[in-house]
Amino acid sequence: MHLSHIEAQLDYEVAAPAHMLLNIEAARSGMQSVVGEELVVEPPTPLRLFCDEGSGNRFVRFDAKPGPLKIAYKASVRRAHVVVPNDLAEMPVTEVPDEVLHYMMPTRYCESDLMSRCAQQLFGDLPPGIGRVQAIVDWIHDSITYEPGSSDSTTTAREVFVERAGVCRDLAHLGITFCRALNIPARLVVGYVWFDEPPQDFHAVFEAWLGGRWVLFDPTRMAPVDRLVRVGTGRDAKDVAFCTIFGDVRMTGKKLVVRELQDESLQPSMPPSPTGEVMGIEKPVPL
Amino acid sequence: MHLSHIEAQLDYEVAAPAHMLLNIEAARSGMQSVVGEELVVEPPTPLRLFCDEGSGNRFVRFDAKPGPLKIAYKASVRRAHVVVPNDLAEMPVTEVPDEVLHYMMPTRYCESDLMSRCAQQLFGDLPPGIGRVQAIVDWIHDSITYEPGSSDSTTTAREVFVERAGVCRDLAHLGITFCRALNIPARLVVGYVWFDEPPQDFHAVFEAWLGGRWVLFDPTRMAPVDRLVRVGTGRDAKDVAFCTIFGDVRMTGKKLVVRELQDESLQPSMPPSPTGEVMGIEKPVPL
Amino acid sequence: MHLSHIEAQLDYEVAAPAHMLLNIEAARSGMQSVVGEELVVEPPTPLRLFCDEGSGNRFVRFDAKPGPLKIAYKASVRRAHVVVPNDLAEMPVTEVPDEVLHYMMPTRYCESDLMSRCAQQLFGDLPPGIGRVQAIVDWIHDSITYEPGSSDSTTTAREVFVERAGVCRDLAHLGITFCRALNIPARLVVGYVWFDEPPQDFHAVFEAWLGGRWVLFDPTRMAPVDRLVRVGTGRDAKDVAFCTIFGDVRMTGKKLVVRELQDESLQPSMPPSPTGEVMGIEKPVPL
Amino acid sequence: MHLSHIEAQLDYEVAAPAHMLLNIEAARSGMQSVVGEELVVEPPTPLRLFCDEGSGNRFVRFDAKPGPLKIAYKASVRRAHVVVPNDLAEMPVTEVPDEVLHYMMPTRYCESDLMSRCAQQLFGDLPPGIGRVQAIVDWIHDSITYEPGSSDSTTTAREVFVERAGVCRDLAHLGITFCRALNIPARLVVGYVWFDEPPQDFHAVFEAWLGGRWVLFDPTRMAPVDRLVRVGTGRDAKDVAFCTIFGDVRMTGKKLVVRELQDESLQPSMPPSPTGEVMGIEKPVPL
Repeated sequence: MHLSHIEAQLDYEVAAPAHMLLNIEAARSGMQSVVGEELVVEPPTPLRLFCDEGSGNRFVRFDAKPGPLKIAYKASVRRAHVVVPNDLAEMPVTEVPDEVLHYMMPTRYCESDLMSRCAQQLFGDLPPGIGRVQAIVDWIHDSITYEPGSSDSTTTAREVFVERAGVCRDLAHLGITFCRALNIPARLVVGYVWFDEPPQDFHAVFEAWLGGRWVLFDPTRMAPVDRLVRVGTGRDAKDVAFCTIFGDVRMTGKKLVVRELQDESLQPSMPPSPTGEVMGIEKPVPL
Repeated sequence: MHLSHIEAQLDYEVAAPAHMLLNIEAARSGMQSVVGEELVVEPPTPLRLFCDEGSGNRFVRFDAKPGPLKIAYKASVRRAHVVVPNDLAEMPVTEVPDEVLHYMMPTRYCESDLMSRCAQQLFGDLPPGIGRVQAIVDWIHDSITYEPGSSDSTTTAREVFVERAGVCRDLAHLGITFCRALNIPARLVVGYVWFDEPPQDFHAVFEAWLGGRWVLFDPTRMAPVDRLVRVGTGRDAKDVAFCTIFGDVRMTGKKLVVRELQDESLQPSMPPSPTGEVMGIEKPVPL
Repeated sequence: MHLSHIEAQLDYEVAAPAHMLLNIEAARSGMQSVVGEELVVEPPTPLRLFCDEGSGNRFVRFDAKPGPLKIAYKASVRRAHVVVPNDLAEMPVTEVPDEVLHYMMPTRYCESDLMSRCAQQLFGDLPPGIGRVQAIVDWIHDSITYEPGSSDSTTTAREVFVERAGVCRDLAHLGITFCRALNIPARLVVGYVWFDEPPQDFHAVFEAWLGGRWVLFDPTRMAPVDRLVRVGTGRDAKDVAFCTIFGDVRMTGKKLVVRELQDESLQPSMPPSPTGEVMGIEKPVPL
Repeated sequence: MHLSHIEAQLDYEVAAPAHMLLNIEAARSGMQSVVGEELVVEPPTPLRLFCDEGSGNRFVRFDAKPGPLKIAYKASVRRAHVVVPNDLAEMPVTEVPDEVLHYMMPTRYCESDLMSRCAQQLFGDLPPGIGRVQAIVDWIHDSITYEPGSSDSTTTAREVFVERAGVCRDLAHLGITFCRALNIPARLVVGYVWFDEPPQDFHAVFEAWLGGRWVLFDPTRMAPVDRLVRVGTGRDAKDVAFCTIFGDVRMTGKKLVVRELQDESLQPSMPPSPTGEVMGIEKPVPL
């Protein structure tokens, strides 16, 4: 069991009346419970919340008036610690559940339809299973330079593959793309991660469907994946942007704090993770 | 009320064991009822059906063994005739329902994030509303050459915009892209249409969210949109391909028949469509 | 006759031994003579100069050692004033001289092969001639936002056309692309321009082949084209980058001064330019 | 010494008056002499010939009237046999001759500026020299599927790299791109090659600048490179298309014959090629 404390402060300058869609609240699922939270928008405005059933994503919508806008979110989040077996199998397409099928399709950022030969060449000869996805993650870590500023909000996995640089979102998109190109369902996960080195920021990783469950992977290796406090899960970053803006609004500041308050997973009664890297948080474990 | 008869025959050569996902059955919704249908796959194989709640899409999944494969679908479909007012308004983003929001995001084929300035320049000065979407449709019809062979399964709206040629799917994708770039939710619709000139084929059009309802548009102007027998509705063609193949399978033949058996909309008791072109089929009208 | 004074100071930090190719010296041609100049590279290094016969481009090559590097160029340049008739005709392809033909082909930044339908739609119905090229320039000025930071060194004309923003180089590339797509030879010209508003910077414009001569156009309208002190002329910016670096070298500073010392074109004996905007500097006029 | 016989017959249907630029005549250089040739265009039209000094390319320009058009070219060509040492070195950029520098720049089909990290990752650790270029060629041969129909006239090296399929031109463009990305000058060469298996066709290969000379490479391995009868040499295929058409002209037929009449290189007095694959034909050897 993990207990994390999160603080996010986002500042904007609103030039004209706008509509905003936030995706910064910790998701609620069988694996993650929010034990306390507070969202303050200044100046005050009616907040409308809605939740995406399948993913647990929680969205907040509101209208923003011209002037400065401050968004402050605080939460304490309890997460189950999950041991991921290191022998999870890829699932034949015929066994992939109906509702998971669409995570096999190409999306705005993940042109898996263009990269099937590529994926076959690089990973097609490896034995199927979690080890193959780990090989994809290793390849991305070794081949793509993590370089802030090297990409922008329009950069796709294909461009990252050619230009060999990107940020966490780009590396995750490339992982998703390779998986889908190999008929492994995959999706983007965004959230808060406690990095050893500042500054704290939103983080993006990905999940692959293995052995009938979603398993988390982080090609950046910037932090163990079991530190992730999940916010959103989607086909790619367009589904789970932390803030989608309709209107003329400019970000003027961003500050995040993530603290691990308690980590009971290190107690002797819990078996250690077999790989130390691959963690899932989806299977129902009593909190 | 319309009554249509559909026949589709698809032939494949399966080179190795494969999994296939069909989206060729007429959708069931408040606006469209299937009064009789038959799906035959030869050689026989267990068929698994599932339905997408929101859209009414019906998918059929099955495993295919090596050798020739024949798929034959027949249906009689009754569709409501809907009069679309010609004064439908665009909806401010703040009023767009939660579940419609994701039809405002860019997708694999519809890079609306890259084309917002473009859309603003071409259509930003027009009065908002159904007339503006009709202007988009007119622009596409006048500017993009309908040219089979000019595009392929990887062609995106941005490419169609630059190269000015495409097929029905491409024109619909461009319409969706312009709409989304203007903050008008839009989505792809595929189905069967009775064309005046053979050959019959699957057709792709698009819907925009206007006045709180989905309204159909066809930039190809190949047939009135109220002839559409709806099969699938999705974010773009990746969601509603008529056949998604996992494996080494080649199409060897395709033959479609669409007939209008009865068209009561022409009877004097029904008011004529005000535009003669723009038809919606989503609002619940008793069949 | 114009007399301009130029000063350019470029500072670099060289991380490892590198080779550099400068294209910052004023070109020498029948229309432009350098009456005095000085190029200083600090620390001193052997400079190798070569000249491109056709274009008058003058390149300087040298090896750079690790450490700070300073390049300072000063020149006084006399330029002929040329009156461009406003009735210049487009030339049928069959009459285009052999050596001009390659300015009709697509290049790295100018994908004219992809944009022929586009160019035809936008400008195909206009009467051929200098007025049509002026219409292209007007369209670019009105449609593409001049926005520093909106593009980078890999941005092509096609991207500028879709995304509707760029800097001077991008606008010139788009002008070239439209011209070539209409079978009008066109090429990039870079140089120094005296802007009314600081800061001074390198500038990029383009030339189209009309009436048997090269005619200058500037879609940015940031300064009259007859203020241009020409440095380089090429197929696109890859031919005439002001500095091409082979190695690990980072720019740390750039400062330019351009002054018009004397402008005899304003004297009463010279007829005013008919359009006030379109100036050519290629035809031999005695200095 | 090799003696080859070439026949090319190209048929077109000209819909409207057009201008055509042919590049099908065997080049003349110190390494290749044309001992007899005939070019017939039907219906007869004045032919204008020009030669590109640097490359030896010979272009033919003419106006075409509406109706069928037949082009027939026959030639006998004597080519020197050149032994390429297998220890040729890459040349430091500082030593690359001025006139070779522009073969290091990206072009329409060869976006070497986007692929420098990629090239470094794949080939950066190999010892510089002809062996590294051979490794590039081997990688392309092993990684890119030769597949007619997989690309078209707009396909670039970057696309080929992602999609892993192409024709001879595409494979050559990718070889050029990798070389340039590694600061090795490279250029496209097109010509006639006697293939063991029909049909005969135009062929495209590439040359890299090694040890102060141009060395031929063929990533398709469809025929030994010393069978090439050179027609054109350029920055990429836009410079040396076998036929560039200005107007509405459609190809209706193409038939090529290439025969090796005599191959004195097999005589005992000639030392065998050290690699059996890498052949150059540029260094002056007396014919």
